[in-house]
Amino acid sequence: MAEKRVFLETDVPFTPVAWGQTKVLVGTAAGGDADKFYVAITEYLPGMGHKMHSHSEDDEVMIIVSGKGFTLSNGVRQDLVPGTVVHIPAGCAHENAPLGDAPLRAIIIKAKPGTPGS
Amino acid sequence: MAEKRVFLETDVPFTPVAWGQTKVLVGTAAGGDADKFYVAITEYLPGMGHKMHSHSEDDEVMIIVSGKGFTLSNGVRQDLVPGTVVHIPAGCAHENAPLGDAPLRAIIIKAKPGTPGS
Repeated sequence: MAEKRVFLETDVPFTPVAWGQTKVLVGTAAGGDADKFYVAITEYLPGMGHKMHSHSEDDEVMIIVSGKGFTLSNGVRQDLVPGTVVHIPAGCAHENAPLGDAPLRAIIIKAKPGTPGS
Repeated sequence: MAEKRVFLETDVPFTPVAWGQTKVLVGTAAGGDADKFYVAITEYLPGMGHKMHSHSEDDEVMIIVSGKGFTLSNGVRQDLVPGTVVHIPAGCAHENAPLGDAPLRAIIIKAKPGTPGS
């Protein structure tokens, strides 16, 4: 059986990605100790963003921690502020981006292990 | 296909539970729209706590948002502070409790839908 792990998210470094930076807390990319799901912290950096894409097999949940931005699907643009929760079903095309001068920081959860950028 | 949902966590009311209060953001108890995983916000209230228990099928991840507390497994007690991440594999017995006068607030993620208190 896998061991319980307790650590500070600040001890996990960010990795640069196309839309800013991300750090995987639990999941394949964090060491292969979670075969069920994936938890990360992502920062969409000012002037960057995540272009329209979808995940064919994974549901995704975003919880906005800080900053402002928007999420776009099917031509509908909705605000992202701290405390916003977004549930994106598998197959649903979506685009996320920050607004303003501060990073848009979010906890990202997927139903199955993934890799940053997937 | 399920619809994308965007909402504020503050619009979801807490439900009283044995260790404080909890609100399910995504999962069966939030309306049956997520068949893969479960995301909630829990507050362990001062003087209360979650007694030793385990989840036979679900992995659990906690991300501490505010407050202080501890998590205990196999006689090992570890601090919980904002930014602490805890990955509890299925079957691992654990106990969580707050310390001090403030609620211990955490984002709770399970690999499969559950119900508050499971």
